[in-house]
Amino acid sequence: MEKFPIGIIGGVSGIGRWFAAFFEKEGHPVHVSGRDTGLRPAEMAGACPVVIVSVPIGVTQAVIREVGPHMNKDSLLMDLTSLKAGPVRAMLEASASEVIGLHPLFGPGVPSLEGQNIVLCPARGDRWPPWVRDVLGKGGANLIETTPERHDEIMAVVQALNHLNTLVLGLSIREAGIPQEELERFSTPLFRARLAAVENLFSHPQLYAEIIAGNPHASKILDLHERAIGTVKSLIGDTGAQALEERIRQESGRR
Amino acid sequence: MEKFPIGIIGGVSGIGRWFAAFFEKEGHPVHVSGRDTGLRPAEMAGACPVVIVSVPIGVTQAVIREVGPHMNKDSLLMDLTSLKAGPVRAMLEASASEVIGLHPLFGPGVPSLEGQNIVLCPARGDRWPPWVRDVLGKGGANLIETTPERHDEIMAVVQALNHLNTLVLGLSIREAGIPQEELERFSTPLFRARLAAVENLFSHPQLYAEIIAGNPHASKILDLHERAIGTVKSLIGDTGAQALEERIRQESGRR
Repeated sequence: MEKFPIGIIGGVSGIGRWFAAFFEKEGHPVHVSGRDTGLRPAEMAGACPVVIVSVPIGVTQAVIREVGPHMNKDSLLMDLTSLKAGPVRAMLEASASEVIGLHPLFGPGVPSLEGQNIVLCPARGDRWPPWVRDVLGKGGANLIETTPERHDEIMAVVQALNHLNTLVLGLSIREAGIPQEELERFSTPLFRARLAAVENLFSHPQLYAEIIAGNPHASKILDLHERAIGTVKSLIGDTGAQALEERIRQESGRR
Repeated sequence: MEKFPIGIIGGVSGIGRWFAAFFEKEGHPVHVSGRDTGLRPAEMAGACPVVIVSVPIGVTQAVIREVGPHMNKDSLLMDLTSLKAGPVRAMLEASASEVIGLHPLFGPGVPSLEGQNIVLCPARGDRWPPWVRDVLGKGGANLIETTPERHDEIMAVVQALNHLNTLVLGLSIREAGIPQEELERFSTPLFRARLAAVENLFSHPQLYAEIIAGNPHASKILDLHERAIGTVKSLIGDTGAQALEERIRQESGRR
């Protein structure tokens, strides 16, 4: 296949920029656009047989509705968002083109695709999926195909629950009232890693708020987390460390 | 100072064994004992001017009461437990010797003291603290001196809250009902690190139950954690991602 141009809306930063560099290294001309820079959606659709939407979750569907109607029937529209049900539905509704939802399960800090996981949700057409599998697979990624709905269900745990847990730790640490400087001086390696995760979350308010609150299963996750803390509280209330130890021992046997 | 013998009760495994190897490398003869091996407490106290108690939190005070009465006035009794108020009080009550509570803020996996933090709570006597500071400081450790009470207050955050948070994540993941194999296939680097932390906690039920439930501030920590999840829940319930994003943005500005 010849090296056709690829358009990345939101390709000026974050994971969009990462993929711009990746496709350039693969020999493709890459057009990127930011909020006020680069080709406008209609021009992007006209110039590129493959258009990838990589903008914050909250504006993804609006951007898809802008670019979708301009996509040709035999072109490919994809998105890189951390949620898949909403964006894939929007791509199917807004365009007549082939549609694949993508979720790279890594951040823009990784050096290559080697060993990284990427979720594919092929949603319309069968001309483009082989190319996507080939170009990402060649790079060393583990490709996992599933439905948008199952993706969001699993990400409710892998991302929403995980980040909720870090957020709750961060809020609790702030409320505990021990000065940050003292926490660092008395830190363990594990605690230093958690402080770094909290700082990273606090530095990306929009991204993490949308991953947690935007997941269709957010309220289930919140309930699970709340119930777990209730469980620990009542175990400790009963007999202190002993009942808690017993419960942890049960869990370690359950795996 | 000549290379006097050092006794480590509980020196056959974990952090006790780590320090046995450390002091041996420093040229000291080291006697270690396990539950059914090595010198008994009275013999240990007779043979070694420095005795270190390194047994599970739940039996630390009982072991201290066994060995304490046999310690000479000019010898040194120390412990390596993750809590300091109870063990230090027990050492002062059970012995007439010098007393220092120690808490190495690392696990037995680290290669050396270089860059690691160790808390010292000198509680009685001034003949031995200079030796302790010298031998640990020479190894590259950052030594922090504080009272047993302040230590436990800070560890309520650095350890109890941190491990409680991981425990709550682990319980929530199990309850979410996504098969472990699927979680691993769809994992991100961050989630893989958290799964490893959960597995580590589930593999040491006694240690983590005692660090969480045994801390004098355990109930405060449980309340903080519970309140934080309540905060997130009501933020999401109000306006979804937007209110949550706003709150996270406030926190990132608070530092």
